[in-house]
Amino acid sequence: MAKEPNKFKLSTEPYKGVRDFYPSDMAVQNYIFGTMRKTAESFGYSEYEASVLEPAELYRAKSGDEIVNEQTYTFTDRGEREVTLRPEMTPTVARMVAGKQRELSFPLRWFSIPNLFRYERQQRGRLREHWQLNADLFGINSLEADVEIISMASTLMANFGAKQSDFEILINNRENIKSILAKEFGDDEEKTRQYLTLLDKKKKMGEEVFKEEEIKLFGKNISLAKGAGEYTEKIIETLHKIGIKNARYGEEIIRGFDYYTGMVFEVYDTNPENNRSLFGGGRYDNLTAIFGGESVPAVGFGMGDVTIHDFLETHKLLPIPKSSTQIYICTIGDVGEYANELANTLRKENMNVGVNIMDKKIGDQIKYADKLKIPFITVVGEEETKTKILKIKNLASGEEKTLKESEIAEFLNK
Amino acid sequence: MAKEPNKFKLSTEPYKGVRDFYPSDMAVQNYIFGTMRKTAESFGYSEYEASVLEPAELYRAKSGDEIVNEQTYTFTDRGEREVTLRPEMTPTVARMVAGKQRELSFPLRWFSIPNLFRYERQQRGRLREHWQLNADLFGINSLEADVEIISMASTLMANFGAKQSDFEILINNRENIKSILAKEFGDDEEKTRQYLTLLDKKKKMGEEVFKEEEIKLFGKNISLAKGAGEYTEKIIETLHKIGIKNARYGEEIIRGFDYYTGMVFEVYDTNPENNRSLFGGGRYDNLTAIFGGESVPAVGFGMGDVTIHDFLETHKLLPIPKSSTQIYICTIGDVGEYANELANTLRKENMNVGVNIMDKKIGDQIKYADKLKIPFITVVGEEETKTKILKIKNLASGEEKTLKESEIAEFLNK
Repeated sequence: MAKEPNKFKLSTEPYKGVRDFYPSDMAVQNYIFGTMRKTAESFGYSEYEASVLEPAELYRAKSGDEIVNEQTYTFTDRGEREVTLRPEMTPTVARMVAGKQRELSFPLRWFSIPNLFRYERQQRGRLREHWQLNADLFGINSLEADVEIISMASTLMANFGAKQSDFEILINNRENIKSILAKEFGDDEEKTRQYLTLLDKKKKMGEEVFKEEEIKLFGKNISLAKGAGEYTEKIIETLHKIGIKNARYGEEIIRGFDYYTGMVFEVYDTNPENNRSLFGGGRYDNLTAIFGGESVPAVGFGMGDVTIHDFLETHKLLPIPKSSTQIYICTIGDVGEYANELANTLRKENMNVGVNIMDKKIGDQIKYADKLKIPFITVVGEEETKTKILKIKNLASGEEKTLKESEIAEFLNK
Repeated sequence: MAKEPNKFKLSTEPYKGVRDFYPSDMAVQNYIFGTMRKTAESFGYSEYEASVLEPAELYRAKSGDEIVNEQTYTFTDRGEREVTLRPEMTPTVARMVAGKQRELSFPLRWFSIPNLFRYERQQRGRLREHWQLNADLFGINSLEADVEIISMASTLMANFGAKQSDFEILINNRENIKSILAKEFGDDEEKTRQYLTLLDKKKKMGEEVFKEEEIKLFGKNISLAKGAGEYTEKIIETLHKIGIKNARYGEEIIRGFDYYTGMVFEVYDTNPENNRSLFGGGRYDNLTAIFGGESVPAVGFGMGDVTIHDFLETHKLLPIPKSSTQIYICTIGDVGEYANELANTLRKENMNVGVNIMDKKIGDQIKYADKLKIPFITVVGEEETKTKILKIKNLASGEEKTLKESEIAEFLNK
């Protein structure tokens, strides 16, 4: 028997690997973005943005054709231009800095919270779109600049409510590793590359497996342990002095991207069951040179929304979700005119106010406000339209307060 | 003689038709987005979001293949899925509402400020990406709901600083136009469509040209003038009663999108030199049905960032740009430790603070702060590290105030 075809019905699913943010999800995103924005601005950083669409050449130059073709969303538009959905923000910000290099006042302290796309083919459940705070300091190559960036990363964790014992900041220096490896491998670039790739996986594979792999690949164990170097030691000392006690040397920290040239750091969750990298950054002094101008020294970091969300959830640091609406005006009878007048009065005092416009029983109106997590309600009936005296009820505690119109805003703000 | 090829150099230009937002541009965007968000939240609306990537089917269903293929960014991913960069938000929000129809508490008051993409081939200088506030009220088909949406649109203009004389709100009803046209054309759908297309262009072509075109196409002038209808008259009366005096019947308002089913409105600049539509919206009660569930009545509007920016600029309503950084700490000598300590103290009081880390003369440090439009500076030298008494200077007025650390935050907040 032939299968009966389904009646045509459009799917309500989003595109594979991306997320819908319903209001309750968006409240969490807005908390995360708000904390990122507040922290960056508190350090004197200014927000910038760009389009998610970038010319594909921007990535081909640094990452090579293979990565662009296989790991990004790249397509040809009807004008035969190759265009990519940005997989990271650093090439974009380097492009923008290079584009106005002569007009801009350095140092630049810039941040952005862009969405980024990766084409993830193999791993199921991996997201193809995420958001990421990018904070960068352009125009100075100095210890003070590196310290400022790490200090901001640390303050960001504190502003999310994390204690210093919840995470640690591992710091290394690309130049320093390379000079140690030069002693081991001379100018054998292939071996150096192999070693760095292995080192990048050390945290995941564990000390023992790493040592076995070292012997397999290089015939011996290579010691980087004494190799923090003067510069990294000085950074760590400075951070300890300003109260960032959870910063230490991390010999295995090298960071994935090729463009790092000096200090690199990574923030790890200290929870033994979830001892993974939360985010990181480092110094990249040559990136703007690909646009033909002078090199602009730069240091920065990026923090993704998904990883930090998981961290906050694990450590029970996510705030209890609530509505942005502060009060809901319930109505009995034909009182819409006064209910809306009251709402507009409160809105002028910067209150967020919803008004019932459904033909529903009062009990159902209150249930509705409670379901939306609106903290306060008031009920407008015939009496209230005359007296303009209102009972404000806190839905969580059940407490009621009788107030004049003019007293409501101050009461709700407390 | 053969042309010498240019040395390879990556362009610093963004992709064609999209914008870079440097911090000074972003400050304006954030003002616009902030006013949109504040207004929507003040009416009890909650923010949602989704990815810019949507399955292409979402648009093919309503708009047809031609529009999707020629006017949107649509491409095939490596999993052979057709994916579109969303050209409008309404299909997305309808998808999300339909997807959780049973769990959501109606009415829904939702808003979002998404970026949208159009493939513009012909017109030079037209943007391919813009941002748009979308505010929608789902679950009620009533005059109160229509009034709430128009009232929010009006408040939004007021919150941008526009006077009622700067704009007018033209209101019509699709059902009403269609019933008038039914009398003229009977069931001749082609003529009805032709007439609506002509009507949509009436504002642009002017009264006279419009009348000529009417005669050319239909052999006579068709009168809609007496046709506001009871419902539209009642909406306008209610709006006038709550103080929205610039609302009136607009016989030529029909709105471009096919999915509108009832009330439609458009906000026009009253400036005779720029008498164009700023934004609009209307009722669409059938859109969620394409997902196979029950129809959810809906009414909403969309306001684009580019059009409102132009309006605010023309009417001199854009705020003077300033930095999000409130104070810049200049340094003389080796005082970095105290300068950073002071900065961190102020950050804990929610101040946005930059600290000099360049080896620059004090005059150049102050010039830098001034160029970035940071309103206040203080200078930390050896003396200040001991006394912890600071002179706070207002760069615009030149005024100085001598304060203890603990007094600075309160002073700057005024």
